[in-house]
Amino acid sequence: MASFIIGLDYGTESARGVLIDATSGTITASHTHAYRHGVMTDALPDGTPLPQSWALQHAPDYTEACLAILTALGKGRDIAGIGIGFTASTPLPATQDGTPLSSILPGEKHAYVKLWKHGAAQPWADRINAGGGDFLKPFGGKLSGEWLIAKAAQIADEAPDIWAKTDKFIEAGDWLVWQLTGQECRSLGLATYKAQYDRESGQYPDHLVNGLDERLGTPHRVGTSAGRLCREWCEKTGILNQPDIAVAVIDSHVVLPAVGGVTSGCFVGALGTSAVYLYLNETARDLPPGIEGMGFDGSMRDLWCFEAGQAGFGDTLAWFVKTFPLARDRNDLTENFRLYNQLAREMAPGSNHLVALDWWNGNRVPHASSALAGVLMGLRTNSTAAGIYRALLESLCYGARSVLELFLAGNFPINRVVMTSGLAQNNPLLVQMMADILKYPIEVPEIDHATAVGAAIHGAVAAGLVDDYSQGTKRFGARTSRTIIPNTDHSAVYDRLFAQYRAMAANPALHQALQQIDDISRHNPA
Amino acid sequence: MASFIIGLDYGTESARGVLIDATSGTITASHTHAYRHGVMTDALPDGTPLPQSWALQHAPDYTEACLAILTALGKGRDIAGIGIGFTASTPLPATQDGTPLSSILPGEKHAYVKLWKHGAAQPWADRINAGGGDFLKPFGGKLSGEWLIAKAAQIADEAPDIWAKTDKFIEAGDWLVWQLTGQECRSLGLATYKAQYDRESGQYPDHLVNGLDERLGTPHRVGTSAGRLCREWCEKTGILNQPDIAVAVIDSHVVLPAVGGVTSGCFVGALGTSAVYLYLNETARDLPPGIEGMGFDGSMRDLWCFEAGQAGFGDTLAWFVKTFPLARDRNDLTENFRLYNQLAREMAPGSNHLVALDWWNGNRVPHASSALAGVLMGLRTNSTAAGIYRALLESLCYGARSVLELFLAGNFPINRVVMTSGLAQNNPLLVQMMADILKYPIEVPEIDHATAVGAAIHGAVAAGLVDDYSQGTKRFGARTSRTIIPNTDHSAVYDRLFAQYRAMAANPALHQALQQIDDISRHNPA
Repeated sequence: MASFIIGLDYGTESARGVLIDATSGTITASHTHAYRHGVMTDALPDGTPLPQSWALQHAPDYTEACLAILTALGKGRDIAGIGIGFTASTPLPATQDGTPLSSILPGEKHAYVKLWKHGAAQPWADRINAGGGDFLKPFGGKLSGEWLIAKAAQIADEAPDIWAKTDKFIEAGDWLVWQLTGQECRSLGLATYKAQYDRESGQYPDHLVNGLDERLGTPHRVGTSAGRLCREWCEKTGILNQPDIAVAVIDSHVVLPAVGGVTSGCFVGALGTSAVYLYLNETARDLPPGIEGMGFDGSMRDLWCFEAGQAGFGDTLAWFVKTFPLARDRNDLTENFRLYNQLAREMAPGSNHLVALDWWNGNRVPHASSALAGVLMGLRTNSTAAGIYRALLESLCYGARSVLELFLAGNFPINRVVMTSGLAQNNPLLVQMMADILKYPIEVPEIDHATAVGAAIHGAVAAGLVDDYSQGTKRFGARTSRTIIPNTDHSAVYDRLFAQYRAMAANPALHQALQQIDDISRHNPA
Repeated sequence: MASFIIGLDYGTESARGVLIDATSGTITASHTHAYRHGVMTDALPDGTPLPQSWALQHAPDYTEACLAILTALGKGRDIAGIGIGFTASTPLPATQDGTPLSSILPGEKHAYVKLWKHGAAQPWADRINAGGGDFLKPFGGKLSGEWLIAKAAQIADEAPDIWAKTDKFIEAGDWLVWQLTGQECRSLGLATYKAQYDRESGQYPDHLVNGLDERLGTPHRVGTSAGRLCREWCEKTGILNQPDIAVAVIDSHVVLPAVGGVTSGCFVGALGTSAVYLYLNETARDLPPGIEGMGFDGSMRDLWCFEAGQAGFGDTLAWFVKTFPLARDRNDLTENFRLYNQLAREMAPGSNHLVALDWWNGNRVPHASSALAGVLMGLRTNSTAAGIYRALLESLCYGARSVLELFLAGNFPINRVVMTSGLAQNNPLLVQMMADILKYPIEVPEIDHATAVGAAIHGAVAAGLVDDYSQGTKRFGARTSRTIIPNTDHSAVYDRLFAQYRAMAANPALHQALQQIDDISRHNPA
């Protein structure tokens, strides 16, 4: 009898695994392993320097982490299924048998994994975008420089010799699945959102990068078993049986089944350093203007999943409390947050005489511009630090409302709003504000390691341990959740404040001023 | 032989006097005396509570301060002349013989001096402004609620019995001159800027307040001797002779001769808590749009003096360093300023990626709106506290440039720019920025107690000790000044940043947003 499932969450700096008891549904153990080479932004392991905006990883770091985690969690145990969430787009060039080119050509920068935040491929995205094309329609007419096609274009253009040696150009999540199962089985989610694969025609966009199509592969929907853990890995890890391995899932999407985001009409926000919003709907319809991408069967089965985000969220708050610390120990982040939250909580909505635009990291939705920046309006000589902190909290919620309203404007029904992450669980002031400003009750699932748990549920579906995601959610997802009800008095005040946010967020003169400030700053470095 | 002159500077909380040796021109002594009742905003001396926005003073406090100062500085000495600068408009109701009504009716709030910042008369200003009239032309079509006519209207309307007992409605500066000389002799500066006296017709505006005209008096130009110190005051103070007393001067104008602001084409900024800009020109022309007021012979002889200001200046910087202290001792204002200036000095113009609108206390020129508030644009997660401090300094200079450009747009020549105050003398970073942003060399006169020294020079002119103000300036004004030359490289960067400031400062949507934020805050107090 299979008694456990495992979920693997591959983040930017490290991978985390959770072991879940298949009978009780509770987490039995978790294990984290940092990547040996971390994120390479300055130089290759041999010291070869890297240009600006590069961000690379070394693929064997992923298998090394996997070995450590599966051994720690699986040794001597029966495992039914394993699911994997992975950063994306994080592709690598490999040979026909899956050997990463960086293992063969360690001194070639283009032989390494290009991490999601590798920004140097943007010019190739710009070039492709300039050409337009139907394949961009589900992505707001715009390819991101962070996506696979732009990264492939950069290699093909800058290093044709490396491109010639590339038999497979593959997302690291898919590559890891291949390593574990011994067979290539790509993910529909990764293919759709990061390589603009069209499910209806069964094709990737053509003629954009010479020979790209033959270096990719047919993708499979979420919850598909990509194969079983191969014998070699069973021996290495001490896992007793050969568990099913689910196709990989984009890390920001994999949380859905852990927090109950498995039904049509559900709006799920993951409030981390930045924020990701996923909206599920059974009906295919044109992408609402400003929303970043959509795909079917790639995030949750039989549902369209629309994706949008805020470029800054928790990091904007962290910036504030680090820049203007209140605590006696200026560096005590926790205490600084505690003090600011305490002071901000005592203020009435509207009393701080401030409205901010939450663009500290630029704006993703709807303007998709990193040249935009934060704005604080209404400062007076009686403004307080806590009042400004509160304005930042409010502005993050206004940003979320801007996203939500794009769906409402597209006549998509929203029947549930779920907010997840440590921030959502630990900052009741923020969540109450979010409810007041969105004017929806907000569910906050109480769950640890939600992303890894979500991955495990994908593993359970792939293994047939549960009939579907709904059942997976019930057995392995969050057991409890708090629901925060909007305070209608507060909502009335926030409606008026949000109208000012919305007016200025759409103000062309302000956009132009911010772009000019950005341009001036580029020409006048510190 | 008369061997000294005395200048008296009547401020909001206290009066200061300087004693200047008439031969050497150097300051021999100074003395400060705080008003016994200070500023009454909550209650009268007998405990009678005051409504919101009231700010009263008790006239005998002024003579008490005068006795202390003249005794300290003048006892046993020969004094040629005494000049007085006084806050304005700070009028009081008095009987025919000059007795303040507050001495007769101490329980009546309308019997007291209404200090310049008494804001409760604004509705009467609004009512008068709605009626319009030619007399408003030299004041941008708008009477301020802080001015004499609005305050008279409030008394006549709210307390007709007090108005009936008012034989004289008189600026406190004029009242003090009357007490010292024994005869009423009003100031043309006070009459022009604060009571809209028209020098050509020799009349105050008619029919605005019932019986106001008969409660005022004929004004006299600056440097006129209002009479000699009466025997009673000579005996009380121990002053040996009977010095000439000059007609009173508005406190923000009286500094001009101390800092060399005595010639046509001179632009003088007094950078204090707020900033006042005075521009002198020999030619009469229409008031440039946005400039607050103009008058002839009331600030400097034979010259038109145009007045404009920034509602916040030093207080905006003080707000920042108090709200976000850097020093180990958070309350050490001097150390906090030192640290912030040090860090801000090291940054290149444009590198802070920020432009602020300096409206922390609202905007006076050109929008005349207290509902406007400060704006900070371009914030990012790598913005620093010192970068924001620098943006505030820059924004204050942008505000000054906005004022200066109104004169340039009106084809007024500006041939000298002088900046005075402790802030101008002690903050070289600010003054260099001011030069870079205004694109004019800036003279910073090195002088202590400039306002009181300016008052003393008015006394010297009134006494005939000097032939004219130019001679007064040479003998008693600042002996040295530093001239700060614009850095043309910096100016080029600031030109681009100022263009963003100007665009957003004139943006109707931003104005509307700020006004809405202000309105929402009024309806949702803390």
